[in-house]
Amino acid sequence: MDIRILGSGNAGQVPVWGCHCVACERAKQDVSFRRGPCSLEIRTERGVTLIDAGFTDLAERYEFDEIQRIVLTHFHMDHVQGLFHLRWSERPEKIPVFRPDDEKGTDDLYKHSGVLDFQTPFVPFNKVEFDDFSITPLPLFHSKITLGYLIEKNNFTLAYLTDTVGLPDTTHTFLANRALDCLILDCSEPPMPSAPRNHNDINLALWVYNTLKPKSMILTHISHRLDCWLIENEASLPDGIIIARDGMSVA
Amino acid sequence: MDIRILGSGNAGQVPVWGCHCVACERAKQDVSFRRGPCSLEIRTERGVTLIDAGFTDLAERYEFDEIQRIVLTHFHMDHVQGLFHLRWSERPEKIPVFRPDDEKGTDDLYKHSGVLDFQTPFVPFNKVEFDDFSITPLPLFHSKITLGYLIEKNNFTLAYLTDTVGLPDTTHTFLANRALDCLILDCSEPPMPSAPRNHNDINLALWVYNTLKPKSMILTHISHRLDCWLIENEASLPDGIIIARDGMSVA
Ligand SMILES: [Mn+2]
Ligand SMILES: [Mn+2]
Ligand SMILES: [Mn+2]
Ligand SMILES: [Mn+2]
Ligand SMILES: [Zn+2]
Ligand SMILES: [Zn+2]
Repeated sequence: MDIRILGSGNAGQVPVWGCHCVACERAKQDVSFRRGPCSLEIRTERGVTLIDAGFTDLAERYEFDEIQRIVLTHFHMDHVQGLFHLRWSERPEKIPVFRPDDEKGTDDLYKHSGVLDFQTPFVPFNKVEFDDFSITPLPLFHSKITLGYLIEKNNFTLAYLTDTVGLPDTTHTFLANRALDCLILDCSEPPMPSAPRNHNDINLALWVYNTLKPKSMILTHISHRLDCWLIENEASLPDGIIIARDGMSVA
Repeated sequence: MDIRILGSGNAGQVPVWGCHCVACERAKQDVSFRRGPCSLEIRTERGVTLIDAGFTDLAERYEFDEIQRIVLTHFHMDHVQGLFHLRWSERPEKIPVFRPDDEKGTDDLYKHSGVLDFQTPFVPFNKVEFDDFSITPLPLFHSKITLGYLIEKNNFTLAYLTDTVGLPDTTHTFLANRALDCLILDCSEPPMPSAPRNHNDINLALWVYNTLKPKSMILTHISHRLDCWLIENEASLPDGIIIARDGMSVA
């Protein structure tokens, strides 16, 4: 099983259009610092599972037959905008799309689902066994109904938690009882004087790190503001914390 | 004034994901045959006006300061999906976005409009004078409230009419009274046995050509089905009809 950060950015991505901050200028000069829409690729011998579909060039990145399933965290546009074009594939096979229990979805995605086969919504904490790994949906705190996922294969455990501000008690307790090899966590902002509204800042991310004690933690959903802060302050973070980069291998 | 077809494709674009038809294979081999989301670029000494924003790489194509305004035909995703990321620019200047009178727009675009400054909706047939050219909004027949545009500068007249199936009488009569230098028209499909639902086929496009008699007519919003048909049948079309290509100069 190969797991890769596909995109590590927030909704504005890095570089932000028209921005001349240090982080955005760096990303314009060296594309390896660019941050696309927050998403994860899980590749096994059987194919690719995408967690979220905010990249709009998925048709160029993946052959149709390569995509085994898509798992959505929530229906904000930066996590689903890549589906509006993909759905018009005329292949007779459908692609199963797993999702939280959000009746509306967004725009006409449910109404004209095309090749996307939206599955019965996940039930929080109900583990689902795929043929190559298992996944347990975990409620998060966000402005839309949002799920994080615990991914398990043999003895390897990975939690993918975005978008969220802090963690609901139920999810926190559930994860505190597990030994996590890796935790990939929303951390959109540098330390803020008061808790942000929909995403973690560095302070909240450190609280999650210190209370769940994963072997390693990868920060994702990163804004240009956090990138600017990291350029000055990354060394101050604990050793087990890693900053996501687009394309980075996780396991 | 330089006018360029930015994208000439329908919502599925060309190549369609996972399709192996002649048109899609040709577009994979030669990128000049690719068709992106249907849109137009108007460039004057003052900057760029975009008609529609379905391309999701507009931040790479244009500097922030280059975009003077965006004019939307309607709120289908293939015409607006490029705005979801652009809006998060943090520049203090706003970009005026002109639009039909569609109260809902789509998703949270009005609610979180960011740097997009949605203007009071256009009134059909009311000519608006910009500083470098004028534009007259024209109602079209489509599954959402949709406007085409008559663009006029000095003696040059261009009608941009997509997405539409046929033309409303009011719009048809309005245009029949004008000498059109160029008409860019939705033609998504090859000839169909009965009229299609939301877009023109070749039969309807020819009816528009024969009744409005523009000096030239450019077919756009093209599907891979129409491309396949054109590969066999383009020579049968009247001389004044041109097939759009992405990036093609119009005037
Ligand atoms: Mn997000
Ligand atoms: Mn979100
Ligand atoms: Mn369209
Ligand atoms: Mn449309
Ligand atoms: Zn920046
Ligand atoms: Zn095709």
